[in-house]
Amino acid sequence: MLQSSIKQVRIKRIKLSESEIMDDIVAVEEPLEIQLQYGKVDQRINKPVSVTMRTPGNDAELALGFLYTEGILKNISEIENVTQNVLDSNKVVVSLKPHINPELKKLERNFYTSSSCGVCGKASIEAVSIACERLPNDTFLISTDVIIHLAHSIRNEQAVFSSTGGIHASALFDLEGNFLFLREDVGRHNALDKLIGYGLKNELLPLNKHILVLSGRASFELLQKAAIAGIKIVVAIGAPSSLAVQLAHDFNITLIGFVKAERFNIYSGEQRIEG
Amino acid sequence: MLQSSIKQVRIKRIKLSESEIMDDIVAVEEPLEIQLQYGKVDQRINKPVSVTMRTPGNDAELALGFLYTEGILKNISEIENVTQNVLDSNKVVVSLKPHINPELKKLERNFYTSSSCGVCGKASIEAVSIACERLPNDTFLISTDVIIHLAHSIRNEQAVFSSTGGIHASALFDLEGNFLFLREDVGRHNALDKLIGYGLKNELLPLNKHILVLSGRASFELLQKAAIAGIKIVVAIGAPSSLAVQLAHDFNITLIGFVKAERFNIYSGEQRIEG
Repeated sequence: MLQSSIKQVRIKRIKLSESEIMDDIVAVEEPLEIQLQYGKVDQRINKPVSVTMRTPGNDAELALGFLYTEGILKNISEIENVTQNVLDSNKVVVSLKPHINPELKKLERNFYTSSSCGVCGKASIEAVSIACERLPNDTFLISTDVIIHLAHSIRNEQAVFSSTGGIHASALFDLEGNFLFLREDVGRHNALDKLIGYGLKNELLPLNKHILVLSGRASFELLQKAAIAGIKIVVAIGAPSSLAVQLAHDFNITLIGFVKAERFNIYSGEQRIEG
Repeated sequence: MLQSSIKQVRIKRIKLSESEIMDDIVAVEEPLEIQLQYGKVDQRINKPVSVTMRTPGNDAELALGFLYTEGILKNISEIENVTQNVLDSNKVVVSLKPHINPELKKLERNFYTSSSCGVCGKASIEAVSIACERLPNDTFLISTDVIIHLAHSIRNEQAVFSSTGGIHASALFDLEGNFLFLREDVGRHNALDKLIGYGLKNELLPLNKHILVLSGRASFELLQKAAIAGIKIVVAIGAPSSLAVQLAHDFNITLIGFVKAERFNIYSGEQRIEG
């Protein structure tokens, strides 16, 4: 059954002195199982690798982006196909070409721990270093007007948010601030995985001539995914966390937060912003 | 090293025609490893069960709440002690009494899947049913004034949010709307685990004479934790997801969203709200 990203529900709306029964729209949240299929032609193996609560839509991109940012996929050429049963659309199978041997041990390790110094923010960032390199310096310069304009643009493009008020978005813009594409999800990590999955599918990676805009706050996990996709400029409408700021510093990513109508904060990489 | 929940960072603030370098405050995000220690006195086993990105503070409660809502702990009397090394505060060890045998297979299953019908929202909710029962009907009635008042109260109590703008909160109130306690975290599931862990530690569970207030949106995962803690009234300042609404219906939980100065929406369990 194909699913919608929004759903109508019956609610009671209370105002101070009155109440009414009416229909309302909420964002849909449903589990998605991602399976990896690999092995020789006559010995195919299906391995479930993740179950995530997501908003239906762009599920193949979500699976591709997840596998890419986990370090399992390197290139779209490794993929044989991506399938989703229309009768059971909460499962996506990503099938690798027969000669591709996925590094499945990467699925067991996670980015938070390292044997060297135990569990700490520094170790978390070092683990990202294994997956990608610090970005080189570059010569482009983005105007402050472009940054301010992005905050307006992302809200205009958020169709599901407009109807539900309850969903996160990741959007990609070029360096002049032109809107390219946007993905929405109840989980902010899913919205970014969908965006990166679209980039992988369309051979746009690394996204190093682009601006990533996040509709809400910037966490470590979102910066980690951005770094792996080669993104150099991350603009969050909300607040960044301490570890997001530290990762941005260490990887030479420009991190901007709290974008308002007339101002914003640069937490890292200010050399790329005019003014 | 004991950690703070906020951190000062150097930023550049851009206004339309000017910019300044200044110090700003961000919410701290650091990994926490939760270990479970169990087994006979002479054969103790330490098993890492989770690593979560959290804001330091109330880490023992976070560990207790996580283990309770995952179904591993039933009662505080099962606990021998909870320890945190002051030199490496990103690890908490929850030690069970020697005669307690934890059901570790619960850590491997998750709430999203069921063998009966595969991966779907219905199966996700059925999995919660195994852990807790639908709440009985009750006779209390909460006034609309109390609900509106809650939205003001939670913002007043959010100390870390006030300084960073970047953190979620879960707060507990009594049925008359009196504030009891609040927990904050960069992860909203962590904020609720800390709150439930406090309840477990102080033998307040089930929290069936209380109102839970969430600073942001209401997801499936948050309603699942509320149901397991016996909470009958959940008030979200933001939007609920489709599966949060469905779970609230199925478990007879009153779910309220979009609380504004003069109105709010009741998504489920309206019989408990006056008007």
